[in-house]
Amino acid sequence: MVDYRIEKKSEAGNELHEMMEAAYGRLVEEREQGIAGYYNLPEDAPLIVDEVEADAAGRESWKSADTVVVIGIGGSSLGAKAVDQALRPLGGALRRLIFLENPDTLEIREKFAAIDPKKSLFIVISKSGGTIETTSIFKLAIAHFGLDVDGKDRERIIVITDDGSILSRYAQKHGLASYLIPANVGGRFSVLSAVGIVPLTLAGYDTRALLAGARRMVDGFFARREDHLLHKAAFFAANWQQYRMNVLFAYGSCLEDFTKWYVQLWGESLGKIDTDGHRVGLTPLGHIGSVDQHSFLQLIIEGPRDKTVTFLKIETVEGDLEIPRITLEFIEKTDYINGHTLHDLLNGECDATMESIRNEGVPTDAVVMDRLSPENIGELILYYELLTSLVGAMLHIDTYNQPGVELGKKILVKKFQNKGSDNV
Amino acid sequence: MVDYRIEKKSEAGNELHEMMEAAYGRLVEEREQGIAGYYNLPEDAPLIVDEVEADAAGRESWKSADTVVVIGIGGSSLGAKAVDQALRPLGGALRRLIFLENPDTLEIREKFAAIDPKKSLFIVISKSGGTIETTSIFKLAIAHFGLDVDGKDRERIIVITDDGSILSRYAQKHGLASYLIPANVGGRFSVLSAVGIVPLTLAGYDTRALLAGARRMVDGFFARREDHLLHKAAFFAANWQQYRMNVLFAYGSCLEDFTKWYVQLWGESLGKIDTDGHRVGLTPLGHIGSVDQHSFLQLIIEGPRDKTVTFLKIETVEGDLEIPRITLEFIEKTDYINGHTLHDLLNGECDATMESIRNEGVPTDAVVMDRLSPENIGELILYYELLTSLVGAMLHIDTYNQPGVELGKKILVKKFQNKGSDNV
Repeated sequence: MVDYRIEKKSEAGNELHEMMEAAYGRLVEEREQGIAGYYNLPEDAPLIVDEVEADAAGRESWKSADTVVVIGIGGSSLGAKAVDQALRPLGGALRRLIFLENPDTLEIREKFAAIDPKKSLFIVISKSGGTIETTSIFKLAIAHFGLDVDGKDRERIIVITDDGSILSRYAQKHGLASYLIPANVGGRFSVLSAVGIVPLTLAGYDTRALLAGARRMVDGFFARREDHLLHKAAFFAANWQQYRMNVLFAYGSCLEDFTKWYVQLWGESLGKIDTDGHRVGLTPLGHIGSVDQHSFLQLIIEGPRDKTVTFLKIETVEGDLEIPRITLEFIEKTDYINGHTLHDLLNGECDATMESIRNEGVPTDAVVMDRLSPENIGELILYYELLTSLVGAMLHIDTYNQPGVELGKKILVKKFQNKGSDNV
Repeated sequence: MVDYRIEKKSEAGNELHEMMEAAYGRLVEEREQGIAGYYNLPEDAPLIVDEVEADAAGRESWKSADTVVVIGIGGSSLGAKAVDQALRPLGGALRRLIFLENPDTLEIREKFAAIDPKKSLFIVISKSGGTIETTSIFKLAIAHFGLDVDGKDRERIIVITDDGSILSRYAQKHGLASYLIPANVGGRFSVLSAVGIVPLTLAGYDTRALLAGARRMVDGFFARREDHLLHKAAFFAANWQQYRMNVLFAYGSCLEDFTKWYVQLWGESLGKIDTDGHRVGLTPLGHIGSVDQHSFLQLIIEGPRDKTVTFLKIETVEGDLEIPRITLEFIEKTDYINGHTLHDLLNGECDATMESIRNEGVPTDAVVMDRLSPENIGELILYYELLTSLVGAMLHIDTYNQPGVELGKKILVKKFQNKGSDNV
């Protein structure tokens, strides 16, 4: 169960009411016309779980693997990484997940050293099929581990990509297992497609429960049981020129990658030129409580009034630790916490920080999970995806494209082509 | 060697020239009057290195330890963590560093499980001495590991705090080794005081070289050899209402914690109410290339013109990996990178991204290290500290206090005290 507490609603005047209804209508349209495919993943993706389980049952190398290596970057890695980090502390995962994302020499060397190829599956994920970081790291892995794509290692190499992409043709040629991403599901909305579901299922997570939680949210939203989303989106859209940033302050170290997933979803979807040619955009920031209270809180409290803050909190955790009734001489003033639990302290800090921020008039809202669970994480994924689509609709932008990143890619290719063949 | 490339200088009119000179003068004053003590750390802290080495030589438990556990949060952990992450890939560290920062049950349980107390040193760091997260985790560690503070484990427990603080009195009572933080060195400026130097020296890093690099920068600045800092600060201060955010885009996974250190330094120092009672502040964001090109770049390129971007780059790394000359059928378009190195790709992405951002008119600058080294990291630390002081001076704020975070702390204490004694 997840509880959504909006503190400040915009005054629901007629204009705002119309904006909310129009945005709701646009999402209905996007779903019906297949403009965005993510709405259907909670219903459709259980089939992928079945498929992965059936495939695994027939392959010795899959059953004996203790590690799943994901080669992918951005939308191809952030979602699964977020779910893995959030759920791993619950225990019960079958296999390690190792993500090879950044083309960073030092990091790749270190991660390669931790991989035993005979006990690993390698999943290459790229929507377009030609992501330069991903193909480069895949080539390095082939050479480093001596992977025989046509022989002994064929079964260990799995591909996830768009139907008909250059990578899917590569997979076909070599007879590799492959799973497809629907064409109308963009990278940053793809965590509940094969992109996230295949590695997470292989890692042993209860992806059916993850999808069930997601479905609860998407069905509830379209049945108008989650209208708090409309109110929250309307506040962001109506006030974006004042409140240019949203800070997701997550209380729990295992939610750090979730904030990174949110940053991509929000930043890449909502930083756009609108239909009138104006630049719009909300800047997402991820922070972790209570650590970042010692880092970022001062700026929120006394700095410019240009931020909203969303608190993400977990009501209870398993195996909570009691702070011992020890008195440190001269430091007796901290004894008020003795006998409480560490999680009480963390959540107490969350509540106290929220209160002090509200006192200052900063708009806040809270998202409270009763506990860490696949259902709740799935629900939260859809919550943020729907929120993003709603704000995009209200800002009159194309939420699903990313034209701004193309130029850099072209410059990169040109730089290397101009280096001439003596280097290559 | 670190190279600083500012692309856009503000037009150096008279007013701006005066602002720069006044800020320079204020820093001279801060140093001479001891208002901020960090300016002297590069010169003074080698004595701490000597002291730690002498102390270690006489203690068997220090010599045989393979792990240094740091119990501290915020300014008491971020700096050492940043240096550790940046320099560990170079090899040669003697001991693991484990940071116990967040009062997060799941994280603390996991980290406790990785600690063998018989092979560990425990460093408790708190400037005031009464940081609630730190004392709580210390109490948990005492109970969990059965630490005998007055007996067998006395030698393993080290304290770093202000002279005369409640924690220093606790240390004195139990005869613990302790190192002091100068009163005029705030937490976020303390990495080159005992706070960072003690754990980093014990971990086996060349902290003398770290301090030498820092000294090169601070001496150079006061000798007017680093005036690029004045120009950069002036651009931020003069344009902060338009460019409200600075993105530190660091190309290198091992620089992620450095960006977090920067976020604290910048956010907590520069988010303030100025001498005229106005809220001012620049919001810092840390991002890692090339991963976050797939996350945040679209927003920079097409979103509102409210950000500046600083690129942090490492010219060469040791043990660079050549991308094999493998052609993946159907994906031949990525072959342009074959035969180049992975670091070439990373830096090529950095250059291409910088160029595409500049084409859009976003103000950028670049900080280029010739390589990862203690000297360069030390220099960068002072570079950012001086920059922060300069911007603070130009914005007419108190760079060194953090009044905004006090209210939350009071609310926290009250919450637990009101829970009544039945809970406690």
